[in-house]
Amino acid sequence: MQMVQLKLVTIIAEALLEERMLEAIQRAGARGHSLSRVSGQGTRGIHASDWEGDNIKIETIVSPEVANQIIEHIAQTYFAHYAVIVYTQVVEVVRSEKYL
Amino acid sequence: MQMVQLKLVTIIAEALLEERMLEAIQRAGARGHSLSRVSGQGTRGIHASDWEGDNIKIETIVSPEVANQIIEHIAQTYFAHYAVIVYTQVVEVVRSEKYL
Amino acid sequence: MQMVQLKLVTIIAEALLEERMLEAIQRAGARGHSLSRVSGQGTRGIHASDWEGDNIKIETIVSPEVANQIIEHIAQTYFAHYAVIVYTQVVEVVRSEKYL
Repeated sequence: MQMVQLKLVTIIAEALLEERMLEAIQRAGARGHSLSRVSGQGTRGIHASDWEGDNIKIETIVSPEVANQIIEHIAQTYFAHYAVIVYTQVVEVVRSEKYL
Repeated sequence: MQMVQLKLVTIIAEALLEERMLEAIQRAGARGHSLSRVSGQGTRGIHASDWEGDNIKIETIVSPEVANQIIEHIAQTYFAHYAVIVYTQVVEVVRSEKYL
Repeated sequence: MQMVQLKLVTIIAEALLEERMLEAIQRAGARGHSLSRVSGQGTRGIHASDWEGDNIKIETIVSPEVANQIIEHIAQTYFAHYAVIVYTQVVEVVRSEKYL
């Protein structure tokens, strides 16, 4: 079974950003996602004030180029004012045409 | 603390496949798993028709050989007719005898 | 966008350990976390007796040094008597000052 390396992008954000985040990843080229609820605690944007509550966790598997686009968009648009975390990991998949 | 590299296998599938997926990973040699509910959107098997709804996410840490067996079984048995995603990542664990 | 490699530490434990686990990661230096519920099956510490039920999954992004501290603490304090799994993965983040 031939495996292909792609990027798993994980976004953790306040629940009120759900629609905007899903739109952003689709616009960048993501072809699917999974979404779950998490609770958490972290630092809020540049204010570093504490927050806690219901967040969403969005995961999507994409090409490195799409991953970069998602990260740049989120960092530039949301990091200053929202408690958003985004990170990428290398994943191996079969049937890479599902994701590209 | 000595760390050992193993494989984290993640399966995202329609909830109706829960039992069959758990049986498949156990038969391949997985010694444990965690399961959560996710919602999501993706492309369905070879039909690429859209679907959305409650899915399960199964995660298990296994040897590379067991990871390959799980992936081959799922790809051959389910990819044609079900909306199943499976991917692997490298993870570092302590106490690798828990997983092997 | 410049990416920095950090460690994602994932802890899966019985729900009764939630507070102690969160305290442990904060004491080690974690600045945030996300928490979700998972169900699962595995082997319990040195007894290897089966268990099943509601677990928590805690994820935190930290430096390699903090990751090591978390893992050592959990392995030494909990592995003998509790069904705890801990593993690390490499992740790429922007704005690494959020995590350090």
